[in-house]
Amino acid sequence: MSLIAFEGMDGSGKSTLVNYLKNVLKEKYNKKVIVVQGLGSSSIGPTMRKIFLDQEISNLTCLWLSLANMSQTMEEIIRPALARGYWVLADRWLASTYAYQIFSYKMDFSLKKFQKITKKLFFLPKITFYLDIPVDIGLKRKRSIIGYELNRFERKDLAYLKQVQKGYQTFYQKEKKVKSYDTYLSSPDLVFYKMIDFLINRKMLPKEGR
Amino acid sequence: MSLIAFEGMDGSGKSTLVNYLKNVLKEKYNKKVIVVQGLGSSSIGPTMRKIFLDQEISNLTCLWLSLANMSQTMEEIIRPALARGYWVLADRWLASTYAYQIFSYKMDFSLKKFQKITKKLFFLPKITFYLDIPVDIGLKRKRSIIGYELNRFERKDLAYLKQVQKGYQTFYQKEKKVKSYDTYLSSPDLVFYKMIDFLINRKMLPKEGR
Repeated sequence: MSLIAFEGMDGSGKSTLVNYLKNVLKEKYNKKVIVVQGLGSSSIGPTMRKIFLDQEISNLTCLWLSLANMSQTMEEIIRPALARGYWVLADRWLASTYAYQIFSYKMDFSLKKFQKITKKLFFLPKITFYLDIPVDIGLKRKRSIIGYELNRFERKDLAYLKQVQKGYQTFYQKEKKVKSYDTYLSSPDLVFYKMIDFLINRKMLPKEGR
Repeated sequence: MSLIAFEGMDGSGKSTLVNYLKNVLKEKYNKKVIVVQGLGSSSIGPTMRKIFLDQEISNLTCLWLSLANMSQTMEEIIRPALARGYWVLADRWLASTYAYQIFSYKMDFSLKKFQKITKKLFFLPKITFYLDIPVDIGLKRKRSIIGYELNRFERKDLAYLKQVQKGYQTFYQKEKKVKSYDTYLSSPDLVFYKMIDFLINRKMLPKEGR
């Protein structure tokens, strides 16, 4: 059992790789696996989303609501799943909150402060896979999905998204348990191969299972 | 213009004294005054309240939602009111959040951490009036209001409320800009007299206005 986070910009391939890993963990390694949307799988998620979309709220309010959503997701899903021996794959977790909701708005809120707040109060992933992609490519990939509507974050311009990316990079400069992959130059298959290799090397998966 | 917070247990006389001060500031001193429920006057207040009452949420989730509510109250009401020269009287503010939502639950969340989080992100009151009353007396006073229904915090037992009170005391041991009054042994009129005196001594009100 482990909490594994997948972080990165929209269009960086998080969902694809989460699904790959889920299926292989289940079918090849016979693990119990649950996938969680780190920022919104809890019972208060829909209400939070409605506030984000319908109400004019400040950046700071937005941050507290996101932390509420995360801590509730942790209590309702992650904690019980880990206790029952599941692997929990989180599609976004702390780094995304920092990058999108603090760093991008240039708030008077340091990474150090964020880490101090979250340190004892949130589960920290055993490993984080950070999927790196140029922001313009990520956006184009998202947009090429037919019928896909951009959300409020995606509608913002590239300058904003580049700031978000810088937020991720700032976050991971200080984090140890993170493995970064370039998902623009490498195919999902290749990245996935490297991921499994990494988990085997870290002894999180057995060698013979391959 | 000033932010003045009124803090203390339920039944300690906050509403009464807030009203006294509001009326005197307006009528005698010709000030513009607004009263704000620090923990729930914002546009997201009703939604937050509904979640608190209807959903099973963790203590930590509850704390983030309260901070969201407070920061939104700050942006929507307190900041614009101060900018327009109003005196803002807040019925509960940071100390209540700390006492009710952190200290009372014995969370792994120190006062130092709380102060670090809130320091630059929330307005700090120019002065806080802390109204101190024995918890059993406060509870009895609240209950004696006909038709008054106890809320989820009030229903909890005295041991819990004593813990909340200890939370206030812990908070104020480290705070300078606080003036404490015993509202059990002193009548509201006497406490109010002392309050006005205090504000005059601090040069927040003119002597001749008396």
